[in-house]
Amino acid sequence: MEDRHFSFVAGSSGIWDVVAITPVTGASLPQAPRLNIVAGLQPPSTDATWTLRGVTSQERYVVRTEHDRLAAVQPPLGRPQATSAALIPIQKTSAWWELSQDQRRDIFEEQSHHIELGIRELPAVARRLYHSHDLDEPFDFLTWFEYAPDDGARFESLVAQLRRSPEWQYVLREVDVRLRRRA
Amino acid sequence: MEDRHFSFVAGSSGIWDVVAITPVTGASLPQAPRLNIVAGLQPPSTDATWTLRGVTSQERYVVRTEHDRLAAVQPPLGRPQATSAALIPIQKTSAWWELSQDQRRDIFEEQSHHIELGIRELPAVARRLYHSHDLDEPFDFLTWFEYAPDDGARFESLVAQLRRSPEWQYVLREVDVRLRRRA
Repeated sequence: MEDRHFSFVAGSSGIWDVVAITPVTGASLPQAPRLNIVAGLQPPSTDATWTLRGVTSQERYVVRTEHDRLAAVQPPLGRPQATSAALIPIQKTSAWWELSQDQRRDIFEEQSHHIELGIRELPAVARRLYHSHDLDEPFDFLTWFEYAPDDGARFESLVAQLRRSPEWQYVLREVDVRLRRRA
Repeated sequence: MEDRHFSFVAGSSGIWDVVAITPVTGASLPQAPRLNIVAGLQPPSTDATWTLRGVTSQERYVVRTEHDRLAAVQPPLGRPQATSAALIPIQKTSAWWELSQDQRRDIFEEQSHHIELGIRELPAVARRLYHSHDLDEPFDFLTWFEYAPDDGARFESLVAQLRRSPEWQYVLREVDVRLRRRA
């Protein structure tokens, strides 16, 4: 099976320059100048300031009609013009994890329009979700975004709307890492 | 956070005697006389014939009304009279994982009555699900069942019905490990 595991390694090397690391809710992550994305679950390294791990997995809330709408417009990662990126690690509350599937879906989409808001910014803002909740990691999700600098306002609008949504009442910790791809 | 990870270690020691290891679909697991359940993700050991790892996690298909019905009748593991057990590791097809959430729920419950069939055998047959799909393991799920020997027929009826259900068309590999607790 292809490896769906990836590690985000912050430290002194990497193809991404860290522009800013900002705590949104709860504790921040230590500052580091560069970031690399490496295949596999990398063990902690003395070369790394921090390492966050995640796995791409099946969709948990998207229904088929939404999946097909997303698939029709979502771009791949690594587009040449998409030199701006954000890594947003999130930890949700235990109250979130104790909800049943239908309750989580209701908050996620019917109340918070998480999928719909993301679709509106496609194909400008590419996105990939990594799951960490079952991996004994400090965060539950790592979301990676890539966009052209000219589309920065679209990305800011997207994260601002999500942070005002009912779903975000279940966010216990959130850090916002902004990056720029090295030339 | 409490550790939700567990390892099923088959070998020469353990509180469970292995009664039989039977392949249901695809390749079996090697025979071993005993089994232990150990907290944490245990690394492969030369003492172990095989080790399977999983994590208890949020419910993926159960809706709130079903959750509450289950919670009202499901017994804990480790009841003194529940000296029979089964460990059933399952790998599902890539076609299953490519389905969206609503399609998987429809097959799982509306077509296959997976939750409803399980509720019918409660409180006789206790059950715990461990997820392995995101852990780089050979199986996607490990289900553990415990019941009194007198309730064996109820357990056999449950697994027979599930194996005839539409959901099982997405099972690529299944092994059936039967156990008896040592006195």
